[in-house]
Amino acid sequence: ELLSELIAFFQPKLLAGRRVLITAGPTSEKIDPVRVITNRSSGKMGYAIARAAREAGAEVILVSGPTALAAPYGVRRIDVESAVDMHAAVMAEAGRSDVFISVAAVADWRVANASDSKLKKRADGRPPSLEFEPNPDILAEVAALPSGPWCVGFAAETENLEEHAQAKRVRKGVPLLVGNLAQRAMNADDTELVLFDETGHHAMPPADKIIAARRLVEQIARRLPVRPSP
Amino acid sequence: ELLSELIAFFQPKLLAGRRVLITAGPTSEKIDPVRVITNRSSGKMGYAIARAAREAGAEVILVSGPTALAAPYGVRRIDVESAVDMHAAVMAEAGRSDVFISVAAVADWRVANASDSKLKKRADGRPPSLEFEPNPDILAEVAALPSGPWCVGFAAETENLEEHAQAKRVRKGVPLLVGNLAQRAMNADDTELVLFDETGHHAMPPADKIIAARRLVEQIARRLPVRPSP
Repeated sequence: ELLSELIAFFQPKLLAGRRVLITAGPTSEKIDPVRVITNRSSGKMGYAIARAAREAGAEVILVSGPTALAAPYGVRRIDVESAVDMHAAVMAEAGRSDVFISVAAVADWRVANASDSKLKKRADGRPPSLEFEPNPDILAEVAALPSGPWCVGFAAETENLEEHAQAKRVRKGVPLLVGNLAQRAMNADDTELVLFDETGHHAMPPADKIIAARRLVEQIARRLPVRPSP
Repeated sequence: ELLSELIAFFQPKLLAGRRVLITAGPTSEKIDPVRVITNRSSGKMGYAIARAAREAGAEVILVSGPTALAAPYGVRRIDVESAVDMHAAVMAEAGRSDVFISVAAVADWRVANASDSKLKKRADGRPPSLEFEPNPDILAEVAALPSGPWCVGFAAETENLEEHAQAKRVRKGVPLLVGNLAQRAMNADDTELVLFDETGHHAMPPADKIIAARRLVEQIARRLPVRPSP
């Protein structure tokens, strides 16, 4: 922690006085008391960005799905499981935040007929039937807030990154969307980020996630609207 | 590790010369390259039993689904993700093992139409349709091997433990089945085990998982058939 503090001390304080809300990790959608639908997100990228934002002087709130990671030094973490939980935690904090960075891999759907007791194998050996309903679109909802935070989205794709990411940026209504290739980044310590904004896209060099996170924080700080004087 | 070795040294060597195969943790069934169906098993109980069996002098092979745990000292771990992977790893080791303890929370079904690329939200906003097919029943298959290992099953139930567990023991064809209440044991450090065998059931007192694991190993050792002299 001392070393973290020393490194943090020497980072430029580009986000001093800013409140940054970040989501990270997977969500876990209940099928029954023991079974869940989730995804392979390790949370490493979101945690690295939380650390980098804190190093840059921001007050950081990290809304995290289930991960095996420790909260970065000085970051306030709120633990959630499902997308609905994450939505509630984010909406409670969004209005007071200057920046919202949506890194979590939020499930698009939840199980509509989740069971309160463990599903048993049926006598006829047929699988249970799962019905799905859509989860709230947390990023689009925060982006649509009247005087909400400046929003950054993430897109993990397995193919056609450029096409999917730019379309997602426009659909969500956010000024900046960060793309990466899921099969390269998932659970890895390295990543290769591409920034999509209204002027086009900008590929950043492959790097360790904390280095990439510091570069991303710098890019975000540079684009933030100047604060009105108090 | 030194302390582990000291504690292990003073445990009675009830399983000396025995080869014990254990499964632990959840399985992770692929929906697409990023989404999975899994369960809340932390792997703690299986890892505790692996440690206790090693302390009791056994050679221990631990086939483990994805967990955040380190392999216990002296235990050989084989990492797997899906039930199909776990089945293959277990069947490769079962014939050479004296005891098989199936602690893993193996998914009953896998996704039959898993996708090689990330499923996109459909334009009409409707959820994707998942089809399921049954996974192999690893415990029943090992129990049915002609000269296979002595088998111990686990049943994590949320209700009607006694009824479900005794029925499961008979259905799987195993001499010993260990039941616990899922909502109490999942991810906890304590557990309350109930042993089911052909004579009835025996409730063990609540205990830390490693203490409970040592008691269970003792119960298993006591029930093992005497080895034929070489």
